Amino acid sequence: MTSIKRIEPYAGILSHASVYNGVVYVTGQVADDCSQDVHGQTQQILERIDALLEAAGSDKSHILFAQVWLKHAVQDFEEMNKAWRAWAPQHSLPSRATVEANMAGEEILVEIAIQAAVEA
Amino acid sequence: MTSIKRIEPYAGILSHASVYNGVVYVTGQVADDCSQDVHGQTQQILERIDALLEAAGSDKSHILFAQVWLKHAVQDFEEMNKAWRAWAPQHSLPSRATVEANMAGEEILVEIAIQAAVEA
Amino acid sequence: MTSIKRIEPYAGILSHASVYNGVVYVTGQVADDCSQDVHGQTQQILERIDALLEAAGSDKSHILFAQVWLKHAVQDFEEMNKAWRAWAPQHSLPSRATVEANMAGEEILVEIAIQAAVEA
Repeated sequence: MTSIKRIEPYAGILSHASVYNGVVYVTGQVADDCSQDVHGQTQQILERIDALLEAAGSDKSHILFAQVWLKHAVQDFEEMNKAWRAWAPQHSLPSRATVEANMAGEEILVEIAIQAAVEA
Repeated sequence: MTSIKRIEPYAGILSHASVYNGVVYVTGQVADDCSQDVHGQTQQILERIDALLEAAGSDKSHILFAQVWLKHAVQDFEEMNKAWRAWAPQHSLPSRATVEANMAGEEILVEIAIQAAVEA
Repeated sequence: MTSIKRIEPYAGILSHASVYNGVVYVTGQVADDCSQDVHGQTQQILERIDALLEAAGSDKSHILFAQVWLKHAVQDFEEMNKAWRAWAPQHSLPSRATVEANMAGEEILVEIAIQAAVEA
């Protein structure tokens, strides 16, 4: 079997990224500083995703699917998208789904998980 | 790297489908006419998914995983399933998860994202 | 096309697992006995996932991504994680996302869907 590469194991619970067969699966990321608004939290998450994709041998132009969860889907959709649009590569936009959910902390306004293609 | 094929880029935000390495990732789809009930919205979404799968070189018999979100999971589960069952190929049923979520518009009762196998 | 293997078709709606191109997609699993608390429900689900992974030619050390939904994300996060940590292979931790959602039954406290690598 092609082996699975695990990146940043955390707390005996999960790895922040897993690479297998040309795809990296990135754990749902939240902001380090959740005192910021949804725009700031989204920017933090996208920087974090850039770093994890780089560690996996990928980058944001190779994202296949992004799952976005918003604590307030209607109210915060545009602010999240503002940060997203400034970051997303216009020549290679990923598939995406955005729905509302509470996360594992009351102060978390947005969480994003990613699947991306990885260089062979 | 095998290149990623992007289908229907939308609003500088996302592509409605991304094809890579034999799999198509379809963006979470909602109904065009959200004045309809959950059964009608589900039918609209499934027609839309048929079209996106065809554009990607796949079809509903090749779905690997479907993520279904319902605004009212308990109340609307059977009505969604009625439309789903009439559409799903009985010889090749996909894996699926259905949970409750609000979506990015109050009138949206159901949203579905898909991963499917694509002809090489 | 590499054919898709369907495992445990259910109710004309879904297959509990679908195997394609070295990956198994496992349907969102819930506990058989939902009178138990979130710890007990999680244990039941993880046993069930072990069995489905075995049927697909995989195991828990090959999980790529786990999606966990909790009815009460903040309140039940630690109890779910206690069962998860006791089960997860410490040398090969999967990527994961955990968010709050109601499921298709009021008594369901947790649901888990999995993607895992499969022996070629």
